[in-house]
Amino acid sequence: MLIYGKEVRDAIKAEIKKYAAVNRMHMVILQIGEDPASQMYVNGICKFADETGVDADILKLSAGNSQEQIIHIIEYMNNDPDITGIMLQKPLPPGFSLEVLANVIDPYKDVEGITNYNLGKLISYEQGIRPATPKAILTMLKAHNIPIEGKKVTILGRSTILGQPLAAMMTAENATVTICHSKTVNLVEETKRADILVAAVGKPNFVTPDMINEDVVVIDAGINFDEEGRMLGDVHPEAKEKARIASAVPGGVGLITVAELFRNLVYLKEEQIRRQREKTR
Amino acid sequence: MLIYGKEVRDAIKAEIKKYAAVNRMHMVILQIGEDPASQMYVNGICKFADETGVDADILKLSAGNSQEQIIHIIEYMNNDPDITGIMLQKPLPPGFSLEVLANVIDPYKDVEGITNYNLGKLISYEQGIRPATPKAILTMLKAHNIPIEGKKVTILGRSTILGQPLAAMMTAENATVTICHSKTVNLVEETKRADILVAAVGKPNFVTPDMINEDVVVIDAGINFDEEGRMLGDVHPEAKEKARIASAVPGGVGLITVAELFRNLVYLKEEQIRRQREKTR
Repeated sequence: MLIYGKEVRDAIKAEIKKYAAVNRMHMVILQIGEDPASQMYVNGICKFADETGVDADILKLSAGNSQEQIIHIIEYMNNDPDITGIMLQKPLPPGFSLEVLANVIDPYKDVEGITNYNLGKLISYEQGIRPATPKAILTMLKAHNIPIEGKKVTILGRSTILGQPLAAMMTAENATVTICHSKTVNLVEETKRADILVAAVGKPNFVTPDMINEDVVVIDAGINFDEEGRMLGDVHPEAKEKARIASAVPGGVGLITVAELFRNLVYLKEEQIRRQREKTR
Repeated sequence: MLIYGKEVRDAIKAEIKKYAAVNRMHMVILQIGEDPASQMYVNGICKFADETGVDADILKLSAGNSQEQIIHIIEYMNNDPDITGIMLQKPLPPGFSLEVLANVIDPYKDVEGITNYNLGKLISYEQGIRPATPKAILTMLKAHNIPIEGKKVTILGRSTILGQPLAAMMTAENATVTICHSKTVNLVEETKRADILVAAVGKPNFVTPDMINEDVVVIDAGINFDEEGRMLGDVHPEAKEKARIASAVPGGVGLITVAELFRNLVYLKEEQIRRQREKTR
């Protein structure tokens, strides 16, 4: 059975719209140079903002700027009370360090949860901003009443914004998590024993029917494109047919990811209101 | 076969002593109230400091202080160029928040690697201070030429200072990691399939022979005490006998942990020298 993200996305969208009607929010997407691959995600964000009444704008900076100049711009935005959240469009052009730039962002404006300070809260189990894609995966599972506690969750991929944070978040949800990657020796052994399999490898149709059991719930977090520009997931359609439940691509996790980014923005706004109130007390 | 930590510990100790002879280092252990359970670890640290020529002192603060007062003390130490590293003795007495106090420590003086900023570097795969116990486990394995890449590593325990960071560090070492905990449903299935099993649950003799295979390498990170005050690990002696390789308790990971804490101190000192140099350039 295929599951979709549209219904949940729409519910979150309604929630954001309601909140935005009384709380002005402003997100800035910092774009350095041009990268067509990530443009679709940014377009989706701007559309969502438009439909919910959130101000979102793209600040386009030439790749000809020095990293030092970009740092100054981020610092300026950190101090601008008009800006609720800052997003850094990735990948960055050559010569710019994500490690450096991400950590210039004030953790209280870090809408993507990519600063080390916010990532650390995954390990210390503290409340805070979480990366949007792993959040979307949990939301997808919960919206479809799929239990997580005590389940064997196998994650394919160990990236900073998906595999690793998801492992920590699933562990916090009481799942027994296994993280697999390109150096995993017997991958099929791992995928076959999963109750929930999350594919986040960035390779079209990577998970084939022979790799899974029929009882499994498959979450496909892959976003790949074929030569005709069609979107493909990390999981082969036949594997999805074999699985008990599988999330669609397109129309699955990706839709919820955008919505979760805006939930993060609301979280930031609430924190900013709280801190402002404390200051003026 | 039992493996021990003394030889590695002594090698690291010699290395620290050599470094300390030319670089003055000063660690402050902040103790709030009295907790006899953690006193042994602190004693071990002070002895190591004494033997290597590192200044270490315990700043004893009454549990009668407010958290606000402790925060001011930490901020004062952050700004004192004479202090290389700050350690917070745990557990904290009731009324004090580890979440708050740990994150007041300047990440560049965070010798234990417990600030969210430093924990986040585990997820972003950046260089930085790592918690000493998971470091000690990796050092133990490497010192005994036990391969990690491609191996199935099962970790029992998901704590902020051990299980979770170790999972990230083992993943970075190309192991296929599974994190187990009290909500894991079929624990024996997980422990039996491990190539390397790390026990960090804090329950004496928790891992019994029936739970493991004979080929496994067992790392016992447990430090428990029986009624007579004898130290017991998390792994039953008979399980250690059955395992191909198992680390001793006492005399195993714990010895190396103290040494790794001082390696962290050297790392901080080097960073402080580097930053000072940049400032005066």
